[in-house]
Amino acid sequence: MGEHRTHVRVRYADTDQSGAVYHAAYLRWFEAGRSEAMRDHGIPYSETEARGINLPVIDLHVRYHRPALYDQLLEVRTHVASLTRTRIQFAYRLVLPGDRRPLATATTVHPFVDRDGRVLRLDRYPDLWERIQRAARDLCRDA
Amino acid sequence: MGEHRTHVRVRYADTDQSGAVYHAAYLRWFEAGRSEAMRDHGIPYSETEARGINLPVIDLHVRYHRPALYDQLLEVRTHVASLTRTRIQFAYRLVLPGDRRPLATATTVHPFVDRDGRVLRLDRYPDLWERIQRAARDLCRDA
Amino acid sequence: MGEHRTHVRVRYADTDQSGAVYHAAYLRWFEAGRSEAMRDHGIPYSETEARGINLPVIDLHVRYHRPALYDQLLEVRTHVASLTRTRIQFAYRLVLPGDRRPLATATTVHPFVDRDGRVLRLDRYPDLWERIQRAARDLCRDA
Amino acid sequence: MGEHRTHVRVRYADTDQSGAVYHAAYLRWFEAGRSEAMRDHGIPYSETEARGINLPVIDLHVRYHRPALYDQLLEVRTHVASLTRTRIQFAYRLVLPGDRRPLATATTVHPFVDRDGRVLRLDRYPDLWERIQRAARDLCRDA
Repeated sequence: MGEHRTHVRVRYADTDQSGAVYHAAYLRWFEAGRSEAMRDHGIPYSETEARGINLPVIDLHVRYHRPALYDQLLEVRTHVASLTRTRIQFAYRLVLPGDRRPLATATTVHPFVDRDGRVLRLDRYPDLWERIQRAARDLCRDA
Repeated sequence: MGEHRTHVRVRYADTDQSGAVYHAAYLRWFEAGRSEAMRDHGIPYSETEARGINLPVIDLHVRYHRPALYDQLLEVRTHVASLTRTRIQFAYRLVLPGDRRPLATATTVHPFVDRDGRVLRLDRYPDLWERIQRAARDLCRDA
Repeated sequence: MGEHRTHVRVRYADTDQSGAVYHAAYLRWFEAGRSEAMRDHGIPYSETEARGINLPVIDLHVRYHRPALYDQLLEVRTHVASLTRTRIQFAYRLVLPGDRRPLATATTVHPFVDRDGRVLRLDRYPDLWERIQRAARDLCRDA
Repeated sequence: MGEHRTHVRVRYADTDQSGAVYHAAYLRWFEAGRSEAMRDHGIPYSETEARGINLPVIDLHVRYHRPALYDQLLEVRTHVASLTRTRIQFAYRLVLPGDRRPLATATTVHPFVDRDGRVLRLDRYPDLWERIQRAARDLCRDA
């Protein structure tokens, strides 16, 4: 339980001419973090989307503490920061394995919307709502 | 007439830690080249797609002659290399304005397909077929 | 004076399978916004970087209000939200031309650092410091 | 021995509004393929680059046979198609694990160049030249 951990490799594609990772490249890793966290808790995004429920990003906040570098193997630690019937917030810490000081920290907020972008109340889907509540309880931040 | 010309600016996002542009970044510029060429000849891709006709890339060939660099303003010269009832091939030259030696040359091949990916014969859409034939004649390579 | 305006075209590369623009694609447009704003006020980033001064992103906050869509021509309105001797904050509004309601709003914070990532006091470069102060005064938010 | 195999997950970031993967997204996976192949044969690119030897892409050819889709776990099969003292060519097959029919096939050509982009003869670096020859022999295409 606690934070979910997944690993990503920094590719040449992610770097820029400063010699470090371009700031937009981190967003792919945060997507990997929340996708793998939800998959490992039984709610793959492909299933949610197939049921007509999308979770677009409506708020993104990233703090870049220290540069990530080419070829590093990074750990994305993901937890659910908050959950209501209409939205979920994920929080991320990007670290070098074994190092507590994060390279970056971030949050993303996602409403539950239908295919036309209208906000849904997730408790109208009782089985999904129960599973996502359980996932949110399990995906809490490490003490 | 002849090659279509559009301009793109190299962004920091396009560079990698070698100090030049990452090879995948050029593909965005070739997309800009063919999109603007077709728009300027009366066939915006948004219209084609709205009619249920897609033009996915099925073949891509790029030669990188000299590195493109941050902040350069580049000219994408696009022409139609071939057109049949079932596919179109675009060819591209990426140059510094006023310089004939290309930084990169490329071709892309696009079949005409429906939303399920099945190949279409474009002459079944007479108005579109006539317009695309005219565009192809106009978008020839400069002598 | 006031906000700087530059225009960008949504490319197919920017979309995702939800049918709208992927959230990371906006970051390229904010880069375009601040780069063109500073260029038009006499401080191209290529010059700053050539003098050994980099402006990495250390804080990024984006709010996505309404989805941007394929082929839209978007206006990026950029202003300087704050300037100190050690950092600059840009703010952005992404709008459809002629429409005041933004599709997205964002801020980025950039310290002034040397090539090794150490923070610089920009008033040690009097000419640059004067020019950037003038640019910041001119690039204020529209009333 | 034979083809090297590495696995990649299709992210939402890789898709476009056609509902499949955007053609440029594959290039990241081919980079992953050759990087992991060389790492597993004792020649990580970070080492090569640290010695002042770069391997830019000068020729890229991709054939897209069938669309890759969101959330698929893909296998990148990489082999060395040719090696001379001045350049190396990699070839790639992107497949669904357990399926022989490729989604895409590709080749990339990389000269050995110094930091200024001048072509190097790799046999001037005997230890590296021997190791890369051995890697090339081992990374042959499966029968």
